[in-house]
This record gives sequence, C-alpha cells and structure tokens, in this order.
Amino acid sequence: MIVRPQQHWLALIFVWHGSVLSKIFTRLFLNFLLSVAVILMLPWYASLGIKLTVAPFSILGVAIAIFLGFRNNACYARYVEARLLWGQLMIAARSLLREVKNTLPDDSAIGEFVRLQIAFAHCLRMTLRRQPVEATLSRYLTPADLATVVQSSSPANRILLLMGNWLAARRREGQLSDILFHSLNNRLNDMSVVLAGCERIANTPVPFAYTLILHRTVYLFCILLPFALVVDLHYMTPFISVLVSYTFIALDALAEELEDPFGTENNDLPLDAICNAMEIDLLQMNDETDVPARILPDKRYQLT
Amino acid sequence: MIVRPQQHWLALIFVWHGSVLSKIFTRLFLNFLLSVAVILMLPWYASLGIKLTVAPFSILGVAIAIFLGFRNNACYARYVEARLLWGQLMIAARSLLREVKNTLPDDSAIGEFVRLQIAFAHCLRMTLRRQPVEATLSRYLTPADLATVVQSSSPANRILLLMGNWLAARRREGQLSDILFHSLNNRLNDMSVVLAGCERIANTPVPFAYTLILHRTVYLFCILLPFALVVDLHYMTPFISVLVSYTFIALDALAEELEDPFGTENNDLPLDAICNAMEIDLLQMNDETDVPARILPDKRYQLT
Amino acid sequence: MIVRPQQHWLALIFVWHGSVLSKIFTRLFLNFLLSVAVILMLPWYASLGIKLTVAPFSILGVAIAIFLGFRNNACYARYVEARLLWGQLMIAARSLLREVKNTLPDDSAIGEFVRLQIAFAHCLRMTLRRQPVEATLSRYLTPADLATVVQSSSPANRILLLMGNWLAARRREGQLSDILFHSLNNRLNDMSVVLAGCERIANTPVPFAYTLILHRTVYLFCILLPFALVVDLHYMTPFISVLVSYTFIALDALAEELEDPFGTENNDLPLDAICNAMEIDLLQMNDETDVPARILPDKRYQLT
Amino acid sequence: MIVRPQQHWLALIFVWHGSVLSKIFTRLFLNFLLSVAVILMLPWYASLGIKLTVAPFSILGVAIAIFLGFRNNACYARYVEARLLWGQLMIAARSLLREVKNTLPDDSAIGEFVRLQIAFAHCLRMTLRRQPVEATLSRYLTPADLATVVQSSSPANRILLLMGNWLAARRREGQLSDILFHSLNNRLNDMSVVLAGCERIANTPVPFAYTLILHRTVYLFCILLPFALVVDLHYMTPFISVLVSYTFIALDALAEELEDPFGTENNDLPLDAICNAMEIDLLQMNDETDVPARILPDKRYQLT
Amino acid sequence: MIVRPQQHWLALIFVWHGSVLSKIFTRLFLNFLLSVAVILMLPWYASLGIKLTVAPFSILGVAIAIFLGFRNNACYARYVEARLLWGQLMIAARSLLREVKNTLPDDSAIGEFVRLQIAFAHCLRMTLRRQPVEATLSRYLTPADLATVVQSSSPANRILLLMGNWLAARRREGQLSDILFHSLNNRLNDMSVVLAGCERIANTPVPFAYTLILHRTVYLFCILLPFALVVDLHYMTPFISVLVSYTFIALDALAEELEDPFGTENNDLPLDAICNAMEIDLLQMNDETDVPARILPDKRYQLT
Repeated sequence: MIVRPQQHWLALIFVWHGSVLSKIFTRLFLNFLLSVAVILMLPWYASLGIKLTVAPFSILGVAIAIFLGFRNNACYARYVEARLLWGQLMIAARSLLREVKNTLPDDSAIGEFVRLQIAFAHCLRMTLRRQPVEATLSRYLTPADLATVVQSSSPANRILLLMGNWLAARRREGQLSDILFHSLNNRLNDMSVVLAGCERIANTPVPFAYTLILHRTVYLFCILLPFALVVDLHYMTPFISVLVSYTFIALDALAEELEDPFGTENNDLPLDAICNAMEIDLLQMNDETDVPARILPDKRYQLT
Repeated sequence: MIVRPQQHWLALIFVWHGSVLSKIFTRLFLNFLLSVAVILMLPWYASLGIKLTVAPFSILGVAIAIFLGFRNNACYARYVEARLLWGQLMIAARSLLREVKNTLPDDSAIGEFVRLQIAFAHCLRMTLRRQPVEATLSRYLTPADLATVVQSSSPANRILLLMGNWLAARRREGQLSDILFHSLNNRLNDMSVVLAGCERIANTPVPFAYTLILHRTVYLFCILLPFALVVDLHYMTPFISVLVSYTFIALDALAEELEDPFGTENNDLPLDAICNAMEIDLLQMNDETDVPARILPDKRYQLT
Repeated sequence: MIVRPQQHWLALIFVWHGSVLSKIFTRLFLNFLLSVAVILMLPWYASLGIKLTVAPFSILGVAIAIFLGFRNNACYARYVEARLLWGQLMIAARSLLREVKNTLPDDSAIGEFVRLQIAFAHCLRMTLRRQPVEATLSRYLTPADLATVVQSSSPANRILLLMGNWLAARRREGQLSDILFHSLNNRLNDMSVVLAGCERIANTPVPFAYTLILHRTVYLFCILLPFALVVDLHYMTPFISVLVSYTFIALDALAEELEDPFGTENNDLPLDAICNAMEIDLLQMNDETDVPARILPDKRYQLT
Repeated sequence: MIVRPQQHWLALIFVWHGSVLSKIFTRLFLNFLLSVAVILMLPWYASLGIKLTVAPFSILGVAIAIFLGFRNNACYARYVEARLLWGQLMIAARSLLREVKNTLPDDSAIGEFVRLQIAFAHCLRMTLRRQPVEATLSRYLTPADLATVVQSSSPANRILLLMGNWLAARRREGQLSDILFHSLNNRLNDMSVVLAGCERIANTPVPFAYTLILHRTVYLFCILLPFALVVDLHYMTPFISVLVSYTFIALDALAEELEDPFGTENNDLPLDAICNAMEIDLLQMNDETDVPARILPDKRYQLT
Repeated sequence: MIVRPQQHWLALIFVWHGSVLSKIFTRLFLNFLLSVAVILMLPWYASLGIKLTVAPFSILGVAIAIFLGFRNNACYARYVEARLLWGQLMIAARSLLREVKNTLPDDSAIGEFVRLQIAFAHCLRMTLRRQPVEATLSRYLTPADLATVVQSSSPANRILLLMGNWLAARRREGQLSDILFHSLNNRLNDMSVVLAGCERIANTPVPFAYTLILHRTVYLFCILLPFALVVDLHYMTPFISVLVSYTFIALDALAEELEDPFGTENNDLPLDAICNAMEIDLLQMNDETDVPARILPDKRYQLT
C-alpha cells in the first residue's frame, strides 16, 4: 500500500512510483509507435479504400468503459472486503483478550494465549501470501503445537483449535462458566469467519471470462483506435491515442492488481504492518514490555 | 472455475479455453457473414432509398451497455453470494466441530458427527447440481439414516435434523449444558442459512424478462449494426461489427453462465474442490489419518 | 415466475409469453404508426422550418438510460429482498422445528405447532396478495385461534403471538428451560423480521415521483424520436424507432412489475410454490405422512 | 408518500399532483422563455461570431447524468434506510411485546409498558419532524415520566430508559430471570439502533458540496443548452430544451426531497401512518378494545 | 460539515463558502487563461497542420465520468461508513449505560463509568484527527488510568480495557451475574468494532493508483479540451471549457476531501459535535446536572 502525504495537484500528475504507469509503460509506448506508423501508412491504406471513423469507437468506448467500471467495482470490492476481514481480526483479537483478562480469575498463563493469537495472525498472513510459516510460528508456539500446525492443510485453522483447547482447559478447571466460555468461543468463531473469508478471496478469482473479455476488448480497442483517429487528428493521433489508451489500460491493470489484495504489489494490503500493529496492541494489553517496533512506510511511501 | 496463473498481457488476448468465445463463435461468425453480405448488397438497397446511420445505434448502444451492465451485476451478485454461502458453510462446519471437540467430555463418537457434516456438504453440492446423492452419501451415513435422507424432499435439511438429534442425545445424556447446546445449535442454524440460501439461488432465476429483453435487444442491435456501419467503413465493416458484437454478446453469454453458479460450466463454482477441502479439514481437525487427496485444477486450469 | 429451461439463443428472440412484450405491444404499435405518419408528414412540416436532429436525443437517451438503470436497480432490489425474506422464513421455520423437536422431551403435540408455522406462511402470502385468509387458515388453526387471527389488523402477527403462547406454555410446564425458550423465541423474532419486511415492501412503493419522471421522459422521448430519426433514416424510421422504444419501454414496464414482487404477474415471486415447499418440508421433518403434492410450473413455464 | 393505484400508461403522463413538476414549473417556464429569447437573438449574436455546438454539451450531459445518478442513489439510499429503520422499530416493538406477554407471569401491568412503546414511536416521529412532543406524549406517559422526558435533550432515548426501568423492576421482583431480561433488553437495544439511525440521517445531510456542484452544473447546463440547440433546431428549441431540462431538474429536485425522508413533502415517509399502524398492532396484541382508526391516504393519494 | 438551511435554487448557484470552489478556483482560472491563449494561438498552430476534434474527447469524457463516478462512490462510501460507525458508538454508549443503570443494584459509582465512556469518544476523535489526547482525557480519567492510556499505542483500546475492568470488578463483587456481564461485555465489543473500523478508514486510503489515474486523466483532459473546443466554439471556448472542467475537477477534489472523513475540512464529519451530543446524552441519562452546552454551527453553517 502506498501512503503518500497529500500533494499539490500539479505535482501529482508527474508521480511515477506507485502508479501502475511503470507496469504499462511498454504497452503505451507500443501504442505510440503504432500511432506513428499509422500516420505514415495513412496515404497507402486510404488508397485501398480502407477507412475507419470514430463513431463506432464511440459506441465501443462507452460500452467498454461501463464494463470496465463494473469489473473495477468487483475487484475493488474484493480489496475492501479483504481489508474489512483483517479489521475484524483486529476486533476479535482485542475483544477476546480483553474478555479473557476480565474473566479469568488466574491470569498467569494469559501470555501463552496471547502468543496463540499473534501466531494466528502471522500464520494467516503468510499462508495467504504463500510464504513458509514454520520459522515465524516457532517464535510463538511450543514445538508440539508447531508440529501439528505445520502438518495441517489449513494451519491457521489448527491454531484456532489450539486456542479453543486452551479455553476449554480453563472451563474444565472451573475458571470459566459455560456462559463465559460460550462468549469467548464466539470470538473464536469470529476469527474463523476471517480465516474462511480470506481463503475465499484468495482461492476464488473474479470469473476468468470477465478478465479475458475486458482485457481483449480493451487491447483491441486501443490497437484499432489510431486508425480511427488519424483521419481527423493526423499529427496529434499518437498523443490522443496514448491518453485514451492510458485511461483504459491503467484501470484494467489496476483491477488486476486489486483482484488479489493479499499480494505484495504496490496497491496490495499492508499485511505485515497490520500483523505488527496487532502484535503490539495485544502485548501492550497484557502489559508486556518486550514489544516490537512499529513498521513504517519506506522512502517511497510503500507499506508492505 | 478457471484458475490460470497470471499471464503476459499479450498472451491473454489469444486464450481460447475458458473464455466464452468457444460458445459464441458461431454467432460471431454469422455476424461476419452478414457483414460481408451487407457490403455486397449495399449498392442494391441504397438504390431503394434505404439508409441507416450510426447515430441511433449510438443511443441504443449506450442504453444496452447500461442495461447489460445492470444484468451482469445482478448475475455476478448471485455468483458472489453463492460463493459466500459455501464459505459460510466452511466456517460453520469448522466452528461446530471445534466447539464439539472442546466441550464434549467424551469424544469417542465425534467421528460419527464429522461424517454427518461431510455428508451435508456433499448432499448440498449434489442436489444443487441435480445429481443423485445416494451412492455418495452411503459412504458417510448409516443405512437407517440414509433411508430417511433420500426419501426427504430436501435431503440436506434431513441431515441437519440428524445432526440436531445427535447433539440432542448428548444433551439428554448430560454431556452438554443447555447453554452449550444452544451455542452448537446456532451453528446448525448457520448451516440452515447456507442450505436455504443455495436453494433460493438455484430455484429463483433473475426475472426471465430481463434475460429476454437484453438478449433480444443485443441480438437485434448486432444484426442491424453492419447496415449502419457499412456506409462509413465499407471493407472494414465485418471487423468492427464483429468486435462490437463480441463485446456485447460475450457479456450476455457470461451473465447467463454466472446466473446459475452451481452448474459445471467453465465459470461456475468449483463445488467438488470446496467439498473436498472441507472434508480434508474436518478429518484433520479430528486427527483422523484416512484423508482424501486434494483436488487440483486439470491441465486446462479447470477446477470443478 | 417463469422457469424456462435453457434455450437456443436464436429461439429466445422469438419468445412471446413471459416477456413484457404482450403488455407493451399496443404502445410499440402506436409508435410504429406514428413513425409512418411522420414519414408521410415530413415534406409538409419541413416546409414550416421545423427540424429535429438526433444530437439532443443522444444526450437525452443517455440520461434516461442512466436514470432508468437506477430505477431498475431499485425495483430489482425490492424483488431480491422480497425473495430473501421468504428464504429467511424457510430458514427460520426449519430451524425452529428442528430445535423444538430436539429439545422438547414430549413431542406428541408438535403437530399443532407445525400447523401454526404453516398457517403463518399461508397467511403472510395471502395478506400480501390481498386475498381473504379465512378459508385457508381454517385448515390449520383451531376455531378459537382462527377467530382472533382474522379479527386482527395484522393476522400473521397474531399467529406469531399464538406460536409464542404455545412455546410459553411449554416453558411454564417445565419442558423448556429459559435458555432454550430464549433460543426458540429468537426464531420467532426472525419470523417477525420477515413479516415486517414484507409489509414494508408491500406498503412502501418506490417514491412515486421516480416512476412518474421516468415514465414521462421515456414516453416523450419515444414520441419525439421518429421526428428526429426521419431526416436521416427515412423509410427505416419505424423499425429503428420501435427497436429503441422497445428497449426503453420494456425496461420501464418490467421495473413496474418487479416493484411489487408479491403480485401474480409473470415476473412476480412464486409465493404459492414457496409456501407449498415449506409445508412439505415441515410435515416431512415431523415424519407426517399426509403431505401435499409439489406445485410445478404450468405448460407456459409459469410458477405462481 | 403517494400511494396511487396503478394507472394506464397514457394517463400517467398527465399527472400533476405528487410529481415534483409543481415545484419546478417556474424553472422550466423560465427555461422556455429563455429559449424563445435565444431564437429571437440568434441573428444578432451569430453576427458577433458567438457560436455554441451540441458536441461539448453531449460530454457535459453524460457526465452530469452519471453524477446525478450517483447523487440520486445516495439520497434514495437514505430514504430506503430510513424506511428500513422504521420497519425495524415495528419488528422490535412487536417482538418485545410478544416476549413480555409470553414470559411475565403477571400481565396486569403490561398496558403501561405498551403505552411506553407507543410513546417512543410518536416521540421519535415528532422529534424527527421538529414538532413539539409534550401534548401527544401526555396521552401515554405519567406526568412524572413526561417531565423527565421533555427535559431531556433526546426525549426518545429517555423513554427507552423508562422502558428499561420497567423491565428492571420486573427482574428485581423476580418475575424475569437474567436470561429473559437479557433477551428483552436486546429488543430495547434494537430500538436504540433505530433511534440513533434516524438521528444520524436527520442530522447528517449528504455532503453539501455534492448538492452544490450538481445543482450548479445542472442549472448552468440548462441555461446554456438553448444556445447550443438553436442552431440545429430553431423553432423546436424551446420544446427540446424544456424536455431535457425537465429530465435533469426534476431528478435534482427529487433527490433534494428524498435526502430528508422525515419531512412532510409529497415523497417523504408516511410516519403518521406508520406510528398509527404500530399503535393499532400493539393495542390489539394486548387485546385492548380502545384502538384508534387506521389512517388512510387522502383524496390526492397522499399519506402523511 | 456544512448544515445550511434549504435555499432558493437560484441563490444556491452563487454560494461560495462550503463548496470546493474556493479550493479549485486557481485551477479553473488557469484553464480559463489557457483557453484564451488557445484562441489567440489558433491561426498559428492550425497552420502547422495540428488539429483536434471533439469526438475523441467525447469517448474520453464518458470514460472519465464513469471512472470518476466509481471513485466518488468509493470515497462517499468511506464517509458514510465513518458516520455509521460514530452512530454505532452512540448506540453502544447509550445501551451500555442504560443496561448498567438497569442491572447494577448499587449505582453510586456509575458516574465513574460514564466518564470512561465519554473519555473513549473524545480519545477516538482526537487520535483520528492526530491531536494530542492527554489534556482532554485528564478531565475524565484518574491520573493512574490516564498514564496507562497515553502510553498505549492505541489509547482508545486501553480505555475499553479499563471499562472492561470496571465491569469485571462488579462481577467479582457479585453485583453482576455471568449472563448480565456477558451482555454488557457485548456492548464493549460493539465499541471495539467502532474503534477498529475508524482505524481502518483512517489508515487505509483508497488505493493510491485510483487517485493517481483519475487525477492525471482529469487534468490532461481539461488541459487538452480547449484545443478541441476552439475550432467549433471560438470565443465561447473559455466559458464552456471552464464549465466542463469545473464539473470534473470539483468532483475529483470533493472525492479527495471525503476520502478522509475524519479531517477538519468543510465536508468532513463533525466529530466535535457528535462527541458533545454523546457527552450530553450520557450525563443526562445519569441525571447529572453539570452538562456542557450543545455545539452549534458557526455563522458560515460550519459544524466541526
């Protein structure tokens, strides 16, 4: 995620890093070259009776803009939902710890439980990003727990089961009444909601045909556009063609980036920072002193 | 569902499998032939004083694009909701099993309950796809249970009732207090929500008149378009006509596919894979060893 | 509701029943006649210096399409919410019965309760459709209950109160603990949500001014359109004018139909079938043998 | 709210009352006069070299239509949410009373509680409409309660506190267990949700700049439009200009009306009728005989 | 937030304060100057064979309007959600206090709890606005509590923990049963939802690339527009160019303002007034007499 301070409107136009411009520059440059070629070839292919006018591109442009707007909506909704789920994890984690601290008569073992919570967040983050979890989790879990977790096909779900076991042990010891256990268990269910929600987003892309149809029409539109513009605009064709192409191709590329919000591209969610904030919060709530430093954006305003 | 790895933007334009292109190719080819015919007939029907211009098609094109965008939204919302419901089933199933394992003092019979849960998922999947359930369910249910389930008009609902009976028996034996029974029962209610939600999507299509009005206007638009384009574009008519038609017809066809997300077409939900993942998760949570292999996409990136 | 099997794309264009075409045919025919009249009058009124061009209709067409899309959204949302509410009724009814069967030690009187549930569904259906309820309800309610129900200004709400009384009697007899009563009572509250939700949709139309503004602009647009098209299209005017009018008028008419989803028009909800399915499900769950036959679509694919 | 019976499509075009037409008639008439003036002035200002074409108005028209559609959405969402909140109040009130009647062993004092509920609805309605509450509330509250209520900065919230006190007194008397008190108290919380939701809608308008930007662009667009149309349309300019202006200005005016759904304009919510229905329902549920008459729409189909 | 009384439609057009006009005036003025320069340079650059037509700008204008509409939606949704969260805080605070007052047998210490609630609201407001919290919180918290709060990385979350501790102390003293503690604790969880929701909105901007792509295309569009308009409009170019630019740039600027709804700009949320209203309500519910005055909009209708 890019967290730029507010900038002058004029300066913003020239920003390079964090835009998708770096990613689509080649395509726009090819469009520019094509436009130049079209200007040069105009006399030749006009003599063949081939002509294109802007009118059908107007119909096509509106239709593509509407459908692209729809796909952007769908992809942005995934991004927003993913962020919402991580926010719910924060809520569930804090509420769970507050409730545990407020209800358990004996709070000496709560540090153990806090570590299970932190492990859950890191484990979810790393499985979503398809990174190996073992090294990180070993900082929070006992070796026995770690072994069962890494063997599981859904490690984060296994950690939830461990948290349930921990609470169940307290109930069997008589520290928690059924009603309080039920309440704490509901927080675990909230975490289960987050887990399955993130898995759903990660495993179920926007239907591939949407991506394909729009990708195809956007690129065919941009390729044919110079041929239609050249008759009216002549020397100005490359500039207008690249501007129109930029509008369409940039949004197509951004939608692709947002579709998988758990990645590590410029516009993806800063899961490292969210996990870090959660870890700090939970440790401070338990009045622990060994708290990690807060992760800040790098020089390019990038937060991972 | 297609789960393609990310591809170069240029390569994507030429993808065949998984697009709806294979399905609508005939229609586009007919459009091409019609356009060619229109070019040939132009002198003849122009001599009759018949003329069409692009301007009214511009109005019509925008209107159809807006309405098609609306229908796409409606159909995509069904797809998203269907996926969400299956995600909720995963959540309810895991939470229910975790809660059962954490609260039942005697866990020797939990394997039975796990099988009821797995049977529920497979039964729901197969009734939604209108496949016979008996053979598959016989792997998970006792013959007596199986008999009552297959006689029911809503077999999955009957399995829910069996799960409720199982929990009720534990309550009567004194293994579950009322509060814990209430909590577990809420998870069954969550499954009931998923069941009725899926039934609703499967039984209530988008109002037929939407499908019809859009289908009709899209096809009439595409049939008349070459007549309007030919005056300006002449030899280029077939190419532009097919491009515009592709944009509209492909989205119309995709909306139709997404409208029934429980089917087995390219862009439908991978219910087999979801049920398989749920089965693996639940068996692993109960520390069972006989776990089925994970279903992976086939060579064409297709996951069923 | 129309539940047509999937059809060939070409066949679909010619479907008559279930489209709104039958309803708006007169209006389209009038538009056709007007267009013909406009062609004939063209020389006369052109000589008066009266001229219309397509350009302002292009602005108007886009604006109307956008606003019509908005109204369609609003009306379709009502349809979807109405269906959702009836789905929630199904969920609540099944969950309530499952919970009652699982928790009541003595299940001899449950048949009574099942009849109250079925009566609730039929009563809601018939009050929404403004049909008299007494005859149907007499099949499910005792005469005393029936009398209080039909005297009430909200009969379905009175049945909910009777269900609450039935459960309260079980609690007073000691068959239900407070916690289980609370849980069952929450299902009654879910039914109360459905009831008030349906009443809300039935009693609160989309603000009348929306309907009026769009209706008016759509018809004025369609009336003036031939005058603008005739200069360019001449003999083709009637065909294009009717096609454009069809797109706008059909969606306007469909929105009107969906606005009140509880009616008995082609595209309204099949409340008879939903109530029938609920009745079958509940009776089967209680292992009763006298179960009504399932309602199926008629020859014209119409389900009421 | 207007509750018109369905009308013939042709008759609808000529409806006056209940449209926003009465409100914007002056503005449309001014637009007509301006258009006539523009026709007369055309030769003069054309001689100055001033010319306007439709093309830039086409860009502007589409942009304004899209943004107006967005604002309409936002304002309509407020209307829908407001109606939803009042529906939730109905649900909470009925459920609360049903639960109270089903659980209290001694129901002699329930009439008192019913009056608190009715007072809450009327109080909310009148504070939202900025009407004095004292006279109406005196019909339902004891003088002591009335005094504390009218002194409060949020009178409806004070009535909720009184309802809570009433239930708390029953709990202290041993008529309600903690679990049942908790359940009833949740219904009070539902009412608190409705209260704060309505306050939020009433106190937080759509950001003023939206209203302003759209208002300004719509009116400037309508003022400049005749200048652009006159070259092509000449004598027809006033008619087309008024038609286009009607489409834009009417929707702008309607959005303004819907933005504050608690007002007493034509398209606002019928809070009087909703409170009346709630009062009838609650009194009938408590089997009282002195029930007010149902409020019906007036001759102009207006329901307040 | 601007809370203007309703104004005459004509007067509204000339409002200056509270519009974003003051903010974008320079940009519009530059556009005006550029347009004048373009008129002057027209003969020169036309002689170079450079020409621009309106047609491609029509395509671009529609596309930008659609994408801008999408971004406006996204930013407005953040504003609405932020307001909703503060509404939920109001609900949770009132319900919590009502429940505490109704259930605690000894209400002498409730004033303490009220102050914790008020401190939570102020603390959340000031951290969202990145203002120092210590001075304000010292009015409500004991020095010991204040010290732990200001040391925390999430001070508002620490106050929630203090509220939990306060309730837990009442439970340990036997004043609250487990079920009532559970109910009150759920209200604290509601506050936790508000807290994390606000943090999410404040920390996660709309993906930067959206802002950038739209900003860039809007400004390039407005810069190039005069070149396209000048051929047709000549002397009128500056006026139409500024009007079109105003429509696009004003919405771009407003979206930027709404994106961070917790700021102190014209169209941001009036958090001071909301906290003030909450403080008054809670103190009045506890029948305290030392209640602060209500914050009202200033002379320019501005509420902070």
